[in-house]
Amino acid sequence: MTTTAINTKQFMTSEQLLEHWQGHRNLTRRVIEAFPEKELFEFSVGGMRPFAKLAVELISIGGPALKGIVEKKMDAHDEESFNPKTKAELLNKWDEETEVINRYFGQISEERFQETFNLFGQYEFPVYQNILYFVDNEIHHRGQGYVYLRALGMEPPFFWERF
Amino acid sequence: MTTTAINTKQFMTSEQLLEHWQGHRNLTRRVIEAFPEKELFEFSVGGMRPFAKLAVELISIGGPALKGIVEKKMDAHDEESFNPKTKAELLNKWDEETEVINRYFGQISEERFQETFNLFGQYEFPVYQNILYFVDNEIHHRGQGYVYLRALGMEPPFFWERF
Repeated sequence: MTTTAINTKQFMTSEQLLEHWQGHRNLTRRVIEAFPEKELFEFSVGGMRPFAKLAVELISIGGPALKGIVEKKMDAHDEESFNPKTKAELLNKWDEETEVINRYFGQISEERFQETFNLFGQYEFPVYQNILYFVDNEIHHRGQGYVYLRALGMEPPFFWERF
Repeated sequence: MTTTAINTKQFMTSEQLLEHWQGHRNLTRRVIEAFPEKELFEFSVGGMRPFAKLAVELISIGGPALKGIVEKKMDAHDEESFNPKTKAELLNKWDEETEVINRYFGQISEERFQETFNLFGQYEFPVYQNILYFVDNEIHHRGQGYVYLRALGMEPPFFWERF
């Protein structure tokens, strides 16, 4: 009985997760803004990708992944078709995806979060785990952006400032 | 009515969050292990803290924070009293905290996750937000450790490998 009780305890609602994610996305947006134009596209440490490339990866996941989950389509992950040349172009797409994420996230039912889905025809996990991965992956790469900014002698935005 | 329905949709259970966190902690443990002994305590990029210091910060949060939440004690955050001199000492403490986290996390009720608590007498947020912060902060700093490893010419563990 105890085990059953533990298994069904809610940690958070889906609205709380969405708000949490969009808070992280606001912070990532601030990190993009913090980079000088040239360094955003060219600077990195240890042979890694510049922050613009990491941001394009994030853009290629969130919205398209949720669309795939809602429409049950398993189109391959596409990181190549969006190639911004300026910070403004990147930020504009970032803001468009904010709306895409809100729209599709709201269409996922409670039951669906627990169902397995083969995301991008490649990552077969429960939907809630796939969504946690999007957020985690963003925090992971943004943390790398913090190191780039520090290496450039710049102060990154506060980690706890989200809205 | 629609709003009410959305607000009460469960995203994940508390057991799923704990498993998710411990998966991240396994990966962070692998990152600690990946550093050469000397560089773990001395190397960094851009004037940041070495990875051992970041790991000590994580150790000073997870277990002590959950204990504070469960016992409703608001002792100040203490990052100074544990000063490991070796990787083995750090890993040993890391593993001890794994059990502390499991023990206290299991004592938090579903209602409690939604209640506000003044963590460490300083961070007044709903308990679920405080716990998300612990996980996010770990991913953030571990992402920085990945850059350190790359700057050292080393391959970090796979981000998606958790257990």
